[in-house]
Amino acid sequence: MTARILVVDDVPANVRLLAARLSAEFYEVASASSGPEALVKAASWNPDIILLDVMMPGMDGYEVCRELKRDKATAHIPVVMVTALNDRQERIRGLEAGADDFLSKPVDDATLFARLRALLRVKQVEDAWRMRAEAARELGLSEPADAAASTAGAFAVVVPGTEADRGVLADILAREGMTVEEANGQEDALALLADRDADLIILGLGPDGVQSLRFASRLRADSVLRDVPLLLVADQAQKPLVLRGFDLGANDHVLRPVDPAELLARVRNQVRRRRTQEMLRADLDRSLELAVTDSLTGLRNRRYAMRHLDGLMRSSGATAMLIDVDRFKSINDRFGHAAGDAVLREIADRLRAHVRAADLVARIGGEEFLVVAAGTSGETGVCVAERLRQVVAERPVQIPDGEIPVTVSIGIAEARPGTRADMLLRRADDALYRAKENGRNRVEAAPPEPS
Amino acid sequence: MTARILVVDDVPANVRLLAARLSAEFYEVASASSGPEALVKAASWNPDIILLDVMMPGMDGYEVCRELKRDKATAHIPVVMVTALNDRQERIRGLEAGADDFLSKPVDDATLFARLRALLRVKQVEDAWRMRAEAARELGLSEPADAAASTAGAFAVVVPGTEADRGVLADILAREGMTVEEANGQEDALALLADRDADLIILGLGPDGVQSLRFASRLRADSVLRDVPLLLVADQAQKPLVLRGFDLGANDHVLRPVDPAELLARVRNQVRRRRTQEMLRADLDRSLELAVTDSLTGLRNRRYAMRHLDGLMRSSGATAMLIDVDRFKSINDRFGHAAGDAVLREIADRLRAHVRAADLVARIGGEEFLVVAAGTSGETGVCVAERLRQVVAERPVQIPDGEIPVTVSIGIAEARPGTRADMLLRRADDALYRAKENGRNRVEAAPPEPS
Repeated sequence: MTARILVVDDVPANVRLLAARLSAEFYEVASASSGPEALVKAASWNPDIILLDVMMPGMDGYEVCRELKRDKATAHIPVVMVTALNDRQERIRGLEAGADDFLSKPVDDATLFARLRALLRVKQVEDAWRMRAEAARELGLSEPADAAASTAGAFAVVVPGTEADRGVLADILAREGMTVEEANGQEDALALLADRDADLIILGLGPDGVQSLRFASRLRADSVLRDVPLLLVADQAQKPLVLRGFDLGANDHVLRPVDPAELLARVRNQVRRRRTQEMLRADLDRSLELAVTDSLTGLRNRRYAMRHLDGLMRSSGATAMLIDVDRFKSINDRFGHAAGDAVLREIADRLRAHVRAADLVARIGGEEFLVVAAGTSGETGVCVAERLRQVVAERPVQIPDGEIPVTVSIGIAEARPGTRADMLLRRADDALYRAKENGRNRVEAAPPEPS
Repeated sequence: MTARILVVDDVPANVRLLAARLSAEFYEVASASSGPEALVKAASWNPDIILLDVMMPGMDGYEVCRELKRDKATAHIPVVMVTALNDRQERIRGLEAGADDFLSKPVDDATLFARLRALLRVKQVEDAWRMRAEAARELGLSEPADAAASTAGAFAVVVPGTEADRGVLADILAREGMTVEEANGQEDALALLADRDADLIILGLGPDGVQSLRFASRLRADSVLRDVPLLLVADQAQKPLVLRGFDLGANDHVLRPVDPAELLARVRNQVRRRRTQEMLRADLDRSLELAVTDSLTGLRNRRYAMRHLDGLMRSSGATAMLIDVDRFKSINDRFGHAAGDAVLREIADRLRAHVRAADLVARIGGEEFLVVAAGTSGETGVCVAERLRQVVAERPVQIPDGEIPVTVSIGIAEARPGTRADMLLRRADDALYRAKENGRNRVEAAPPEPS
């Protein structure tokens, strides 16, 4: 897949060289020759990846990276820092500034393109989520995600590749406050991953690196594990296998002997990225939930109830109970709207506490609730309704200024499998009307359907 | 990226050969030796791609493909048909059965892996959408998408690569009932694509194929055009460029001389896939909209109004109008709930018709509406409120059994930039109370904020 790459370097010859190589691989390239220019281009040109030189006069690469990651508009763009030195301290500084990876000059093509492909693959999926999450945010459905997701409480599975990996890798993560399980072989790793959602997998390449890559591939082919960050640990001599691993879907790597600070910096970046992604997804799920939730009581809303009623009745038949608060208007008039709301919330809580988890409880009108118990019939339905009437009537609702005695009237109707939902509700409504006529605070059942 | 590949062939040696090659590239492989077995494995093993032999005893590849595409559980899995013959008729039959691509035996590795990568890339993004759309569907927020998306009314942009392409390609599509624009060079193509959302781009490779690929890459690097299916047209000798094109993000290809039936079959598949994807996205957008929409009136709901009020007031100050239907309870009691609903809908329509597009109109309670006019103050606000009062009172609401005269009372309050939303609403509520006290069907304004 192609992409837009922003090359940042103060030496024109470096820019030209890198741009030519990227361009030969059909990437779209733009360049910037200083930190400030890079910040402007990153915001305006919308690159997919930024290749960022570390050593620049004025604002250096670290500072540029920190700025890019601080700004909401550019924080999601992967940054690869390019440095003349293969220096451990520099790498860690870069990672801590939020860089997504590090390349040492001279950059060889195989490494460069393998890293670009890996970063782009992750970004492409993330972009889709981000767009949707932003749509939800614009509608006011969710708050902006907290960018500073941390590694605290993260869960990692470590699959050692050599005796040297054993204990050591897990220890480094555990000291960071993460929960770590060290797997005893690949099957054990899969069992651990099936047990609990992991935020990270660390896979040590064994002496037979190909066999380790086969396991990496297996993790990537699994639709659930596919999105868990995968970090490879390998010997210097296994560098070609690592590049292959990137193409299979690995997200990052460290070389042995493992530097604890570097491992942690890379782990932190991966876990943070994973958590941001999870937040975007959760945001979207929550937004969808809101569409079927009554905001006052937290019960399902009318929209949800009407859509699901047919499904509930199709298979098993059901009993519907229409529950209306008695003289609700006068509660509002006497105690005010806030008290009225408190009454509705309290009734919702009591109803919810006294039906089965599988039953539908919804607020379908101002002071009207609907309970549908699937697979319930006759006597049982009436008993349930009677219990619901009692749990409302038995003690008044507490409000800050005192208490309000409340009762409900309930109309109940039973449906055989396949009955239409609107017919069922009409019969329940008629029964409710009679309950009101007959003095309120009572349950009336509709006569059985004509057969 | 790796994936699960289901290999279907009745000849065990063929299966072994293909499985070994895929496995060497770290793909996960399962196999089936007959059509019925393939259908079972496709549903249970959840492959990412199916490589399907055409010639099998009993149920042949075409039939298997049709079955796979008919079943909702497997319709989204790309199917690549593998045939011994490079026969035009066979190719078209396969494409019409819904196959996503065709490979001729003996299958060379470069072609095989380039195609797999291209199909997987598309599937990965699609999977993300499908999951979310299914979540929305389970909540009852959207109906299952119609799988039989057609090419009718589809819009394609054709970029001829040679004189031979000119007119010919566009003609073939136009005869199928698609709207086609033939671009006069690449810049013209970009202009056409910026003008109108395309369902398909056909790019003919010119004599300088690399230059054409550079254009393909440019299309793929554009965040809007990235998802529009891209079909390459090339000479037999340009096959290596086509494979490169797949890696850049092209979705399909035909070779010159172009066979109209084959081009159409491939175009149909691509457009259908695109439209299904669009439907999934639109579904999701609609679901999000529902979360902020009042289902009775179609106005924004209370949730939306409360979240956006602060934003509206932050910059410019605003005038809030709380609008309450007079004696609504008695309308419900005298004419029934259905008539009450009709009244609320009619009032919503009249309010919407008499405010500016940028103003917020929401139903925030049973019979209570909120209008917020940003940047409006003093006299103007009162004028607007007075007009809204009049458009409700001036003619009765028509219902099937007659008509219902309706009036509203309006409380209005003005806020300076930075005022808190809840304070503004409280002042509007006090004004509304006075409007009711003073005889209803009138507008009362809150006294100015103490400064």
